[in-house]
Amino acid sequence: MNYPNGQRKPLTIKPKQTSFSRRGMTLEEEINETTDFYRIQGQAVIHKKPTPVQIVNVHYPRRSAAVITEAYFKQASTTDYNGIYKGKYIDFEAKETKNKTSFPLANIHEHQVHHMQQVIKHGGISFIILRFRAYEETYLFDAKDLFVCWEEQFDGGKKSISYNHVKQLGHPVPFHYQKKVDFLSVVDKLYL
Amino acid sequence: MNYPNGQRKPLTIKPKQTSFSRRGMTLEEEINETTDFYRIQGQAVIHKKPTPVQIVNVHYPRRSAAVITEAYFKQASTTDYNGIYKGKYIDFEAKETKNKTSFPLANIHEHQVHHMQQVIKHGGISFIILRFRAYEETYLFDAKDLFVCWEEQFDGGKKSISYNHVKQLGHPVPFHYQKKVDFLSVVDKLYL
Repeated sequence: MNYPNGQRKPLTIKPKQTSFSRRGMTLEEEINETTDFYRIQGQAVIHKKPTPVQIVNVHYPRRSAAVITEAYFKQASTTDYNGIYKGKYIDFEAKETKNKTSFPLANIHEHQVHHMQQVIKHGGISFIILRFRAYEETYLFDAKDLFVCWEEQFDGGKKSISYNHVKQLGHPVPFHYQKKVDFLSVVDKLYL
Repeated sequence: MNYPNGQRKPLTIKPKQTSFSRRGMTLEEEINETTDFYRIQGQAVIHKKPTPVQIVNVHYPRRSAAVITEAYFKQASTTDYNGIYKGKYIDFEAKETKNKTSFPLANIHEHQVHHMQQVIKHGGISFIILRFRAYEETYLFDAKDLFVCWEEQFDGGKKSISYNHVKQLGHPVPFHYQKKVDFLSVVDKLYL
């Protein structure tokens, strides 16, 4: 078919999908799928917390479900994921960046860092899962290493964690078909 | 002043408030206040999960915050509260009833019971906090005792837990001014 301006519609060739293709899933979707799998397998009980929303108006139509007609996004006061694994409390945040050289610390909120500090203090396991989209690389980055970077930014340090730093201190998270972000295999080696 | 129908506005006398007055707080509000206090004191890190909401439409006005204009309540797939206490994963649900003689099991969803079973299996601490409004009595009721009642209802048993049963098997949760639902004092005795 011809387009109005006379040009032909360009032929789009889909990239070949290998069995390891992520099919454009976000990091969050992949982690959710992974934690679902862990749960079904009886390996761990980890859930993503619902998005915090401030509900202002709810409409109750007759004979049908209540509709929230006005609500606002609230800032999360904790990390996104928590649960239990091998008797241990586990708590983490997941973030991806398109940035090729560093992960901007602005992606993490101060109260989240504070929350992770408390978790560690009480004997829990805490980390962030970082994905660099450009390289399709996913790392588990220990909370204590994050705290160092976090503090340094207020002390003349960088406002980001460089890709090289993540590569050096972080731990690559393996990809499996049913466990696309198999972070528990890293947790096993690192904390247990 | 006189009302349109000629009646006087009835004089409302506020009930005297003692220092221990709950001032009409819901169980949830009291637990939230208590967990806040635990957190500030560094005793435990326990949070209520946000209400799960299915967001359908979001409006992004210029120069102001995004407004969710259509959303629906989703059923929670876990309990309301979880966190870490003395290195242990802790997970519970809170429910109050106006019923004087029993707590209806319809207040608990099957997947919540299933979730609590998984938590126990993985070595966590799990229970429900039950309040009988009529008596202003609050009990910690162990998850395993709940599972027994839950299974019995499908085996010709009652669809509720009688008040007497809760009184017998449950553990009264003490009230303190800053810890209105001081469940950790019960957790200490019961699980640690």
